[in-house]
Amino acid sequence: MSRIYNFSPGPATLPEDLLKQAQAELLDWRGTGCSVMEMGHRTSEMIALTKEIENDLRELLTIPSHYHVLFLSAGASAQFAFIPMNLLRGKRTADYCLTGHWSQKAIYEARRYCDVNIATDSTDNLFTNIAPINEWRLNRDAAYVHYTPNETIAGLEFNYIPDTQGVPLVADMSSNILSQPLDVSKFGLIYACAQKNIGPAGMTIVIVRDDLVGQALPETPTLFDYAAQAKEGSMANTPPTLSWYFAGLMFKWLKQQGGLAAIATINQRKAAKLYAAIDQSSLYQNSVATAYRSIMNVPFVLKKPGLDEQFLQEARAAGLGYLKGHKLVGGMRASIYNSMPEAGVDALIEFMQRFEENN
Amino acid sequence: MSRIYNFSPGPATLPEDLLKQAQAELLDWRGTGCSVMEMGHRTSEMIALTKEIENDLRELLTIPSHYHVLFLSAGASAQFAFIPMNLLRGKRTADYCLTGHWSQKAIYEARRYCDVNIATDSTDNLFTNIAPINEWRLNRDAAYVHYTPNETIAGLEFNYIPDTQGVPLVADMSSNILSQPLDVSKFGLIYACAQKNIGPAGMTIVIVRDDLVGQALPETPTLFDYAAQAKEGSMANTPPTLSWYFAGLMFKWLKQQGGLAAIATINQRKAAKLYAAIDQSSLYQNSVATAYRSIMNVPFVLKKPGLDEQFLQEARAAGLGYLKGHKLVGGMRASIYNSMPEAGVDALIEFMQRFEENN
Repeated sequence: MSRIYNFSPGPATLPEDLLKQAQAELLDWRGTGCSVMEMGHRTSEMIALTKEIENDLRELLTIPSHYHVLFLSAGASAQFAFIPMNLLRGKRTADYCLTGHWSQKAIYEARRYCDVNIATDSTDNLFTNIAPINEWRLNRDAAYVHYTPNETIAGLEFNYIPDTQGVPLVADMSSNILSQPLDVSKFGLIYACAQKNIGPAGMTIVIVRDDLVGQALPETPTLFDYAAQAKEGSMANTPPTLSWYFAGLMFKWLKQQGGLAAIATINQRKAAKLYAAIDQSSLYQNSVATAYRSIMNVPFVLKKPGLDEQFLQEARAAGLGYLKGHKLVGGMRASIYNSMPEAGVDALIEFMQRFEENN
Repeated sequence: MSRIYNFSPGPATLPEDLLKQAQAELLDWRGTGCSVMEMGHRTSEMIALTKEIENDLRELLTIPSHYHVLFLSAGASAQFAFIPMNLLRGKRTADYCLTGHWSQKAIYEARRYCDVNIATDSTDNLFTNIAPINEWRLNRDAAYVHYTPNETIAGLEFNYIPDTQGVPLVADMSSNILSQPLDVSKFGLIYACAQKNIGPAGMTIVIVRDDLVGQALPETPTLFDYAAQAKEGSMANTPPTLSWYFAGLMFKWLKQQGGLAAIATINQRKAAKLYAAIDQSSLYQNSVATAYRSIMNVPFVLKKPGLDEQFLQEARAAGLGYLKGHKLVGGMRASIYNSMPEAGVDALIEFMQRFEENN
């Protein structure tokens, strides 16, 4: 069949042009006579690619020079353990903001390594709102403050960067990295898995201020000791080179789109029109506090019961795939990351309106 | 340019037919209208793929049912830490066989978690020989015995499975898994990264006897706790699905070749003719004890000094790439994994003979 609009939360859709380039050069990359995935990581070609992807990411996010950029194996969930292992630096406590499923998972894992202080807790409002920061219970002795700027399941996104009064701020940006310009200097550490806004699953980017590395717990595996990986240019072992290649294609694609300011404008427009369509309908509903509605993940329910399966089937027949919401919340979810074209959102809105008229 | 014969030690060459299939379906996998790398890991299509790859691997290696098969993120070096974390089971000591660079790295990392007893040490013979097992200093109280059946740098390969008298045997088969039939029941745990005989870098397969899991150290990250991953079918987090896909293509390709007995015959023939060409020449030399010469990685030096660069350049011009030996040992290395066609080895031998005649 032809390509569909894929609203999957991740692994997620990628730009068709990017895939076509990968397809064209899959058997012979840059005239080497080899596929990129067959290239030794210490070849001059792969070393050049490594520099390219780091430079492009630094340019896109204007990452200051006193931050390391690491391209690590495995997903962001692995960092739920490795962040406390690396960042406790002799302290015993870390602050965590509990604003959804993913921050909850991060907290669960961090508790193996330290005392977790829950600075704010959105459980009572079912992760649809965030308490004002002046109500948070921040601990000045915390090693760091961890938060999840965008919660993909409930579709809850911070619209500001919390001021943690000098305590290093750690952000799981798995589902909103590169979706808008960012002041990296406000953070101690930013991490993000690849499979939403970057490329295939299996890689996590860690951007960390250099004064925070070098004091990992002794039981930290070498490959996940940020200092060791910083020293080796993320090549303390054979890295996931095919993931690096796709990240590189994505960074080039973003630059071609005009960078993060340009993509942010499109992202805002996509989200605004989808939320407007939901709010204006009498069938669809999104319960997240307006200020904190996610630009990347738009969950909604059908208020009339018994229609979910039909909605999903007819959507799929219309070329709109993977709209089923997470099992924890049910309903629908449209993930509209950078790679989802505006035409895909328009097609979804048109389908939703037609479906409402017919039901 | 056209495809070359790529003798890289890993990431390594893949069958051209496999790459062509991946290329053909890169934008639309199995009629989904999506690339395989854009598919959510919990979709029915990806769950089906998961079952397929596990079943195919179980069939190829005739893995008994009381072994878990895990497809984990990151490379085999990560397991250097996670093996002691998972397998110590209250014991304090593990036996390690030091037969090359990779076993040395495994030992270095294991020492963070336990006392390491070096059961045998090939340092003195520069990793070109293995002491008879009756000379090993095995410890009956060890949690396990770890060895590296094939050392890729020196090209040293065990031609037997050590009998460890009931102590669980752990094998890093990164560079020789699937190269020949294997009696899995002799092992407590087998692990292997993907980038030699399976696919792109970024995944490690762990095959572990089920009675050995479930007692991980408390500081083991959940994603690398074998019991947790066994319970979740290797989906305790988003797995590296693109790596899974390539592994699946490789397992099908191996079955098409006739399985491991058939591929072993070809591998033996490839290695035998290359070693014969080296031994019969007066220019080339391999110093590994004949009984333990690797079938997968054939290192050799040029006895006449000053010719290395010229050899590499002329080889490359003849379509034979990435023959440079590891910096620790210098000289040349031809990695001739499953995917290296016999014609590639023939072309290398022909080139070596021509080069010798001319120099």
